[in-house]
Amino acid sequence: MSAGADPDGGLLGRVFLARVLEPGDEAGGRWLRQFGVGEVVRRLRDGGPALPGVSGKRWGGLVARAGRAEPERDLEVARAVGIRFVCPGDAEWPGQLDDLGDGRPTGLWVRGMPSLRMWALRSVAVVGARACTEYGAHAAASLASGLAERGWVVVSGGAYGIDGAAHRGALAVGGATVAVLACGVDRPYPRGHTALINRIAEQGLVVGELPPGDHPTPSRFILRNRVIAALTTGTVVVEAACRSGSLVTARAAQRLGRFTMGVPGPVTSALSAGVHELLRGEAVLVTDAAEVVELVGDMGDLAPPRRGPVLPRDLLEPAARTVLAALPGDRAAPAEDIAADARTTRDEAIARLYELRALGYVERHGDGWKLTRQAMISVRQRPGPC
Amino acid sequence: MSAGADPDGGLLGRVFLARVLEPGDEAGGRWLRQFGVGEVVRRLRDGGPALPGVSGKRWGGLVARAGRAEPERDLEVARAVGIRFVCPGDAEWPGQLDDLGDGRPTGLWVRGMPSLRMWALRSVAVVGARACTEYGAHAAASLASGLAERGWVVVSGGAYGIDGAAHRGALAVGGATVAVLACGVDRPYPRGHTALINRIAEQGLVVGELPPGDHPTPSRFILRNRVIAALTTGTVVVEAACRSGSLVTARAAQRLGRFTMGVPGPVTSALSAGVHELLRGEAVLVTDAAEVVELVGDMGDLAPPRRGPVLPRDLLEPAARTVLAALPGDRAAPAEDIAADARTTRDEAIARLYELRALGYVERHGDGWKLTRQAMISVRQRPGPC
Repeated sequence: MSAGADPDGGLLGRVFLARVLEPGDEAGGRWLRQFGVGEVVRRLRDGGPALPGVSGKRWGGLVARAGRAEPERDLEVARAVGIRFVCPGDAEWPGQLDDLGDGRPTGLWVRGMPSLRMWALRSVAVVGARACTEYGAHAAASLASGLAERGWVVVSGGAYGIDGAAHRGALAVGGATVAVLACGVDRPYPRGHTALINRIAEQGLVVGELPPGDHPTPSRFILRNRVIAALTTGTVVVEAACRSGSLVTARAAQRLGRFTMGVPGPVTSALSAGVHELLRGEAVLVTDAAEVVELVGDMGDLAPPRRGPVLPRDLLEPAARTVLAALPGDRAAPAEDIAADARTTRDEAIARLYELRALGYVERHGDGWKLTRQAMISVRQRPGPC
Repeated sequence: MSAGADPDGGLLGRVFLARVLEPGDEAGGRWLRQFGVGEVVRRLRDGGPALPGVSGKRWGGLVARAGRAEPERDLEVARAVGIRFVCPGDAEWPGQLDDLGDGRPTGLWVRGMPSLRMWALRSVAVVGARACTEYGAHAAASLASGLAERGWVVVSGGAYGIDGAAHRGALAVGGATVAVLACGVDRPYPRGHTALINRIAEQGLVVGELPPGDHPTPSRFILRNRVIAALTTGTVVVEAACRSGSLVTARAAQRLGRFTMGVPGPVTSALSAGVHELLRGEAVLVTDAAEVVELVGDMGDLAPPRRGPVLPRDLLEPAARTVLAALPGDRAAPAEDIAADARTTRDEAIARLYELRALGYVERHGDGWKLTRQAMISVRQRPGPC
């Protein structure tokens, strides 16, 4: 559980606000910026004085929701099932979400072992139609596998169709994947993806703005897409009809200055028409993971440049240091072998390996992980305690 | 038969050179520019003095070919089967071929009724793989039909696969199509397309640099592609494997400042890989004829802008004037009806209608042809003799 180091107010205040404000509420974002978490919470709890920029009716609705909010209980329920709340200022907060300005999430509920911040540093969104074709599902799964094998984290929305194929493609090769949900992260949606989303929570991360127990709504789906776009280096759309929700994600990515990519398909397929529309604009046509990494890898890497030596090992979390110490010095090893050497689970090893990847210590090549040249130099120069 | 108004020399000289020089011979092009047709013909006939920039062996080969050339006979044989020779300076010469510089064809052999110059003004190349898929053939045929229905001329190479589908798509809707061959225009190649190419010569144009009777060779196919690229406003590639000949056409179009377009396909198809490669570069993704016309129509129209009134009717050829007079003033009519009213054949009517289209007199909408607003204004302002 994060300490809630937000200078504007405490963890509990933000948990409260996550319950009261809808995702992407820009008036709420302005209040937090202008008045601070403490003052906004106080006024909502006390029923006034009303904060600026909303109607009396809307203010009344927020106050009513505030009256029903039980942030201590939300945190307790979440903790009991292994869910933490990460908020701006926390060590695990992905700084690139601040690009959303006043639409930035109040905080994110997170299920899973890895550090959201570390994983997001080298991540790509793979999104698309729910009612996709076999072709689209195949393309999404291959793309996601290829990205995972190159050490990239695959982010998607957990939905049927392209999203599911992307998550499965990453999981299938022992890769890293993040599902960003439009509902409470304890309530997998769609129900038919309960097993998939639970598996993602074991091997990767399940993330969302909505408090435990909350349901998705059409507007929540749309607003969830801005989080996927902001969290990642770039967004790839694989099959989308015109006016598809995944085009919203792509356009949000464009507005945020992220890479926007599309996988083409037959011009006779209505499910490729939206992608082709994107590709006739600013989006870049990609046909495989290598082309995605070529685009986002050099210029788009949100991680600090890897020219010099890597961070001192002493600054790593103990779990990451243990996994790093289990990597053989002279060759690539599969995650299973590294996990066995580190006396931990494969899922834990995967969590740490992709974190170490973001920090420049290790690289993934197909099925194997190995130390980077920089990591080996740093080992030789200054043998660490591990 | 054109008069051969080339200031550099006579028609016969260029017919002779078309027999002696290979297509795209840039040394030959330089000679014509520096010495003029008459002098180049004389030296080749006399065996010297050798012209600069070629080896003695190469010069000897050219002199030997010159010894066998019989330009009068070439013209006679061609005339007998309705083939004319169009060369730079002729009224029918498409000026945009001059963009090829010293690689400009010496002249072009032409079969068919329409004016090559007029037709080329509003033309698009549709090219692609010989061994195409059903998907590619369908896409090429739809694209060509759509272009023809919008009054555009479809240019291709007469080959199996995409080329054939494009020609057939245009023919099927009573449209205009031009086959640019890599052999004598009296010798349809491939043999299996004899009926198709003969049909194109009736309803459209069959064009080539090679003199009657000449065979295609691999280098002639490649060099033919520069003529397709230069003749047209833009080139659309529909299916092409990596290293396909149609990518040569597309790259030539790019170098010449023409629009380069590609029709995407499944990323799992090797026959779309070359197109996707193009689309990851400068080429524009197109999915139908409307998108092609949107791109080439406004900026790329090689015809003079149509803002003002159209050219005076008196300057039209009599055959074109007759067809123009047969257009109803108040509605669209199919080519068949116009042909009947003009007491001519449907093929002749089609030839003239697409010429009139290039000149801004008429428009095609689906199956019907009608006068443009400008043409109607000019009729009202100044009733012509027809």
